[in-house]
Amino acid sequence: MTTTRRPRADAVRNAERIVRAGRAAFHELGADTPLEEVARQAGVGVATLYRHFSGKEQLLRAIVLQQFTEEVEPAIAQALADPDGWHGVVTLLEAAIGMAAREHTTFIAAKDTALLPELAGRYFGPLQTLVRRAQDAGQMRADLEPDDLPRLLTMLVATLRVAQNPELGWRRYLALLLDALRPAAATPLPPAGPRRTRADGCD
Amino acid sequence: MTTTRRPRADAVRNAERIVRAGRAAFHELGADTPLEEVARQAGVGVATLYRHFSGKEQLLRAIVLQQFTEEVEPAIAQALADPDGWHGVVTLLEAAIGMAAREHTTFIAAKDTALLPELAGRYFGPLQTLVRRAQDAGQMRADLEPDDLPRLLTMLVATLRVAQNPELGWRRYLALLLDALRPAAATPLPPAGPRRTRADGCD
Repeated sequence: MTTTRRPRADAVRNAERIVRAGRAAFHELGADTPLEEVARQAGVGVATLYRHFSGKEQLLRAIVLQQFTEEVEPAIAQALADPDGWHGVVTLLEAAIGMAAREHTTFIAAKDTALLPELAGRYFGPLQTLVRRAQDAGQMRADLEPDDLPRLLTMLVATLRVAQNPELGWRRYLALLLDALRPAAATPLPPAGPRRTRADGCD
Repeated sequence: MTTTRRPRADAVRNAERIVRAGRAAFHELGADTPLEEVARQAGVGVATLYRHFSGKEQLLRAIVLQQFTEEVEPAIAQALADPDGWHGVVTLLEAAIGMAAREHTTFIAAKDTALLPELAGRYFGPLQTLVRRAQDAGQMRADLEPDDLPRLLTMLVATLRVAQNPELGWRRYLALLLDALRPAAATPLPPAGPRRTRADGCD
């Protein structure tokens, strides 16, 4: 029994090691880093890497999924458990934009994979719940609609692209945008047209 | 004398006609429209088009310059003459984002030409003057800095990319952002890191 479990555990460990190495390599050297270099940094052979990931897109998907699971999902759980709806909204916005800022290279490279819309679905549902909670409590302007939320994220992510260092500065524009979401600031908003259907809200 | 002036006037008219045809064609058919089609719509030969514009990039630059001159520069003059600083700020933001929304295809295609940083220089100077005027009058939060302005435009332009129809909806996000700029809304802002030096502020 141990002998059959062993290779599987090894495989899982290898896959995880490759994902972490890819995450570090893309972060430091850019998303153009060849997979051979990722394999080297993970301490596995190139053949092993390709057994787990058929190409860079698959590796990018695995990296973004790992980031989301480790950084955003705990924030979602924490925010939903927060008795303060507004505080929960802030937690969730910080988690998403913070992840995009820290892992900007990977994030931009993964933008066109099918994964982002899937994760967006897992993110915007809870965010919408929290926004409604904050609105019901009078902590947030009442005229903000669910369809606005991906666009707010889009606005925040856009500031990363013009920053010399994406890890700096996003808190300033988040703070600015949060001021716009408070009921005290609210002037009537004109309607928005529909979003494009792809609409992962992340770029 | 008339015979020497005549061809020059014709040349100017032709160039202008090509720019208008290019503007309409890119708007309707996308920036991939071949220059042959632009020449056809302008009613000139392909050789004439190439005598005026050595390639698509040159034509795009001429189009954006025409748009800026016709739509944004009058708004700058009007805003600077406005006794109400806040109103002037709104006029200028509306002019820039409105142009980007209406001419989104051309704008995106021209993004990487050298022209945008040059126009940004002609735009952000007056905007900065107006912001200072509105801040001095207590109409606008005092902690907004000149370096924030291109980022605000970046945020607004980003919403266009996720809109099904870029001409719809931008007023909603402009209104939201304007609410954030008012003194009533202001909570202290964290500092921003430096922008990238290219920083045309338009994407």
